[in-house]
Amino acid sequence: MKPTHIEHIGIAVSNLAESVDFYEKVLGLKCYNIEEVADQKVRTAFFMIGQTKIELLESTDPQGTIARFIEKRGEGIHHIAFAVENIEEKLRHAADEGVRLIDTHPRKGAEGLDIAFLHPASAHGVLIELCEHPAGEKQDK
Amino acid sequence: MKPTHIEHIGIAVSNLAESVDFYEKVLGLKCYNIEEVADQKVRTAFFMIGQTKIELLESTDPQGTIARFIEKRGEGIHHIAFAVENIEEKLRHAADEGVRLIDTHPRKGAEGLDIAFLHPASAHGVLIELCEHPAGEKQDK
Repeated sequence: MKPTHIEHIGIAVSNLAESVDFYEKVLGLKCYNIEEVADQKVRTAFFMIGQTKIELLESTDPQGTIARFIEKRGEGIHHIAFAVENIEEKLRHAADEGVRLIDTHPRKGAEGLDIAFLHPASAHGVLIELCEHPAGEKQDK
Repeated sequence: MKPTHIEHIGIAVSNLAESVDFYEKVLGLKCYNIEEVADQKVRTAFFMIGQTKIELLESTDPQGTIARFIEKRGEGIHHIAFAVENIEEKLRHAADEGVRLIDTHPRKGAEGLDIAFLHPASAHGVLIELCEHPAGEKQDK
């Protein structure tokens, strides 16, 4: 089955407060949560637009993925997350199609989602995240 | 009023056929249209996922925007398009907030939408498109 929707778009930013200000003042969005994801060395600000979140990602560590991304190519769009059902099966299917996986099994991401990344070298330059709400939990946003 | 949803995500690709194949085989999406937008020097393949389209963009001209984007930083996510109401007013508001506009007035984009871009230098590195369905036309996808 195909992904149900774009769960979020991750955007690497240098200064979370300044970027939150931009999305609120210029686009009229409202930040509903700021969360630190220690595992990924980021602080994340969330906005909801229809079915999709914008996740602004500020690095909490100069050696973190987001800090290195910005150092290499500046602030900008970092990844796209597709909401899927049965993430384990989707990962196996991608591997069977010859796609290189960053995560061969799902791990916990922001907001308690099960997440896994495909490698951009296997996805025409796009860092693709697959994510799924854990079984039994409903998305209430 | 805030944007209603993410209308599409634009992705720069070197070879449209190969990328369409990836999104169909690996993610299970279905390309429903391929369209050439002469004005923007691209051929575009469209996929629908919930409220949002993925638009793969292949350059038709070595001097086009997408060709130069890929030459500079490789294939990857090129822009995010927010669906808005009253695009003219949104542009004026962005300009009032000090945002540099690529398009001070909307022009016609793919699928007949009225579109306008904000400059990424004013948007923390993100190329943001605003788009609106022309008055009286309903989106039936």
